[in-house]
Amino acid sequence: MTFLHPQPNRLASWLFCFLAAFGFVQSEKLLVIPQDGSHWLSMRSVAEKLQERGHEIVVVAPETNLLLRESEYYERKTYPVPYTQEDLKMQFQKFATNLFHKVSFPYTIFQEYRNNMYVIDMFFDNCDSLLKNREVIQYLEQSRFDALLTDPALPCGVILAEHLSIPSVYFFRGFPCSLEHAICKSPNPVSYIPRCYTRHTDQMTFAQRVVNLFVNSFETSLFKTLYNKYQDIASEFLQREVHLPTLYRNGSIWLLRYDFVFEYPRPLMPNMIFIGGINCEERKRLPQEFEAIVNASGEHGIVVFSLGSMVSEIPMKKAMEIAAALGTIPQTVLWRYTGEVPSNLANNTRLVKWLPQNDLLAHPKARAFITHAGSHGIYEGICNAVPMVLMPLFGDQMDNAVRMESRGAGVTLNVLEMTSKDLSDALKAVIYDKTYKENIKRLSELHLDRPIHPLDLAVHWVEFVMKHKGAPHLRPAAHDLNWVQYHSIDVIAFLLAVVLIVLYISLECCLFCFRKCGWKKGRLNKKSKSKSQ
Amino acid sequence: MTFLHPQPNRLASWLFCFLAAFGFVQSEKLLVIPQDGSHWLSMRSVAEKLQERGHEIVVVAPETNLLLRESEYYERKTYPVPYTQEDLKMQFQKFATNLFHKVSFPYTIFQEYRNNMYVIDMFFDNCDSLLKNREVIQYLEQSRFDALLTDPALPCGVILAEHLSIPSVYFFRGFPCSLEHAICKSPNPVSYIPRCYTRHTDQMTFAQRVVNLFVNSFETSLFKTLYNKYQDIASEFLQREVHLPTLYRNGSIWLLRYDFVFEYPRPLMPNMIFIGGINCEERKRLPQEFEAIVNASGEHGIVVFSLGSMVSEIPMKKAMEIAAALGTIPQTVLWRYTGEVPSNLANNTRLVKWLPQNDLLAHPKARAFITHAGSHGIYEGICNAVPMVLMPLFGDQMDNAVRMESRGAGVTLNVLEMTSKDLSDALKAVIYDKTYKENIKRLSELHLDRPIHPLDLAVHWVEFVMKHKGAPHLRPAAHDLNWVQYHSIDVIAFLLAVVLIVLYISLECCLFCFRKCGWKKGRLNKKSKSKSQ
Repeated sequence: MTFLHPQPNRLASWLFCFLAAFGFVQSEKLLVIPQDGSHWLSMRSVAEKLQERGHEIVVVAPETNLLLRESEYYERKTYPVPYTQEDLKMQFQKFATNLFHKVSFPYTIFQEYRNNMYVIDMFFDNCDSLLKNREVIQYLEQSRFDALLTDPALPCGVILAEHLSIPSVYFFRGFPCSLEHAICKSPNPVSYIPRCYTRHTDQMTFAQRVVNLFVNSFETSLFKTLYNKYQDIASEFLQREVHLPTLYRNGSIWLLRYDFVFEYPRPLMPNMIFIGGINCEERKRLPQEFEAIVNASGEHGIVVFSLGSMVSEIPMKKAMEIAAALGTIPQTVLWRYTGEVPSNLANNTRLVKWLPQNDLLAHPKARAFITHAGSHGIYEGICNAVPMVLMPLFGDQMDNAVRMESRGAGVTLNVLEMTSKDLSDALKAVIYDKTYKENIKRLSELHLDRPIHPLDLAVHWVEFVMKHKGAPHLRPAAHDLNWVQYHSIDVIAFLLAVVLIVLYISLECCLFCFRKCGWKKGRLNKKSKSKSQ
Repeated sequence: MTFLHPQPNRLASWLFCFLAAFGFVQSEKLLVIPQDGSHWLSMRSVAEKLQERGHEIVVVAPETNLLLRESEYYERKTYPVPYTQEDLKMQFQKFATNLFHKVSFPYTIFQEYRNNMYVIDMFFDNCDSLLKNREVIQYLEQSRFDALLTDPALPCGVILAEHLSIPSVYFFRGFPCSLEHAICKSPNPVSYIPRCYTRHTDQMTFAQRVVNLFVNSFETSLFKTLYNKYQDIASEFLQREVHLPTLYRNGSIWLLRYDFVFEYPRPLMPNMIFIGGINCEERKRLPQEFEAIVNASGEHGIVVFSLGSMVSEIPMKKAMEIAAALGTIPQTVLWRYTGEVPSNLANNTRLVKWLPQNDLLAHPKARAFITHAGSHGIYEGICNAVPMVLMPLFGDQMDNAVRMESRGAGVTLNVLEMTSKDLSDALKAVIYDKTYKENIKRLSELHLDRPIHPLDLAVHWVEFVMKHKGAPHLRPAAHDLNWVQYHSIDVIAFLLAVVLIVLYISLECCLFCFRKCGWKKGRLNKKSKSKSQ
């Protein structure tokens, strides 16, 4: 962990603690309810920086976990869960293996849903265990935290913040299908904001806009599908009827790993703070074995290849296709891969169990990045201006890949359908066609030219919420309106009724006058007729 | 001007210029088209800071002006206008005098409109003179600016940016009736965002929401009324048909003097940067004569009273009412007033031609602030946590006052209708009722706890636009859609048509089947009848 915290930071931390102890600076107590896996990576850096600034950090984690390790930066409080480390590994392996099962549309949707539910169900058991653990809950009740920092992808932290009556800060990439915008009452026009899984850009044809509206109508159902079970345990735990979206609305600040070189420009609410690229670190010296490989790559340079922490093995047939393609380029390829070695692996390809992704991408010899289009990886690609070959596998990765491709910074491939030649062509394109490099360089410059580093911004807002017990001045009054009021349907209906009544009365008056005149005229005519007779 | 720029800043400026001259830092050239009057005050500080950071600044100003003085921080390029300094002074005096003419509703609207048009018409002549000045325009064409910084309250800078084909940054408080949101395609729900002149808060009753919708429908007409004449000179100058709102949309960044301790939380677009409070400066030592007055005020402290730079004289009857009220409090009142001295002026009231408003408000002895509720003054009140008595006079001041009052940080008075007792009561309330002080202190703490100072934020974004030739990644695709497309009316109409056609075909099929069955049945019945006969 030393690389994250060079000596000056440790010194600053000690100085802060010293000053806090004597009351010169304010020190607060933060409860962290994280999400295991890659989600934790950038949240950890916020927790560590807050500790360096003199705050007390408590991270609550399941005993069985992937990355929620003990640390000198925080106190870790664990609770038992009904699955073992082996179960956890198996579940993720099953998840990863299923990604390579080729099925045709519309079965892809069901497969994606079922596959995600394997993991989501396990996390549900995890949350259920925490909320039912009297000892941990009592400890949390007695600890008097100033705020709660949580990844709200799953609502365990959201429920706990309500129970403990403390303000909360949410930290994550965003919900599936941008549910955070619906919760925050941030307008989300369907005409230019592409919905999830559609693979649209913000420039849509008429047909695409029809599809977008159609997909949009499923968003509420998605929330219900994903979180219905949580609604029940939340009601049980809080001992009252709970509406989960209303609970989510209590989040004081949403720290979202978004940035507009990656996302399409759209409306935001004031409590949505964008911290995309928070995971990009300063380039550090490469470990010796990697330095040697990179130096040996000569003028051709290197290609970095990783499908993320959840996928380390792929079917042999696919691995051999990929290996064949990698052999067609003169660059040295560093491939993070723990599966069986493909027999056709070329000399230019080095398989590694782990690689320092950001530092390799930051090296001047990096020529291309083959990625599964996870948001962490894409931001590292953007920060270091390395053009990408994107092989999305699940979740938001398809849409992420389209975003990069639409900006001319990469080529997207369907990993299940691509041939060796497709991958080889894509690699040659992003390495030798200068426009890809120029585009990613432009995006990188725009992304890095910011008034404050995303990590400092995130730390500021967590401290703000701890200090001011929330951020009530950023809460829109829209939360106090129901759907009819928010869309002014009652006002429009009232005005319409007034117009109709006025029209009706006017019409009646006209008819009355007309009848009166007509009647008089008629009577006159009759009179004149009778006189003339 | 020394107070704005202590020695270290000048040193930094020289160092920057030195480094820029040797190519170590990038130096750009900025064209500034300002708006005269109080609008210029905070924009000037941005221009000065940019010069300190090594950029070349050219400010284009009319020869006859109020505050657009020469400066060592920028090159000032002037152009003649068809009015004299005397005309200018007279026009503003007429404007100020009219504010105290008491008329009843709805004539207030016409008076406000007519009064504003006195000034707006003069500014129009100013813009017309600039665009028709061949020498200045040629100079601007040849100067190769990297960007244009302008106050877009009036569109002269917007038109020039289009002519010179350079990216622009807008800097101001906001349009009348938040037209910036309409131009930026920032959603503006009428259900919880109060419209101008309504004096509503964000918590509206049904009746208020009806009024809000009604006022909202006039916003487009307001734009046309205010800017129609500019559309004509823009078309003439650019030698093509011009649609002014479309021209406004080219602004890369909108630097808006808003902050959510003052404004109600609402949706924003990514290119809208909030820099409210940019005018609050560090407290500086008071000039000797003021220091003496403040020190002599004893434990009661002082009250600061100013109706802004545009109003320095008021009718004697009103002045005497005010003077009587000021005499009822034990605090020393510092009143910025250049008119005839009211005969009943009490001993505790000191009339001054000018006062260091921010430094007086920042003094620990400041107890209250009597203000016309201009945004600059309100931010100084917030920054220094001084409760306010608000006497709005025109424009956005009525709504500003309501915002502060709704947050419990001040009391609003109608300057035309108030009595001596009203003012006296209001002053005693904000000085002695602790809730006012507590509320303004809470707002002040929230406002000042920010990740970056508004001035640095503004400077960052101007430099960003100069360096990257705009901010294209923040431009929403909504600008490429027409009204029908943006609201998905075409898509909804299409889906409705599909549904209707499907329903119609289904109905026809059913009828056909029914008829077929009925016919058969009928025929069978007939047959059976004929057989039975």
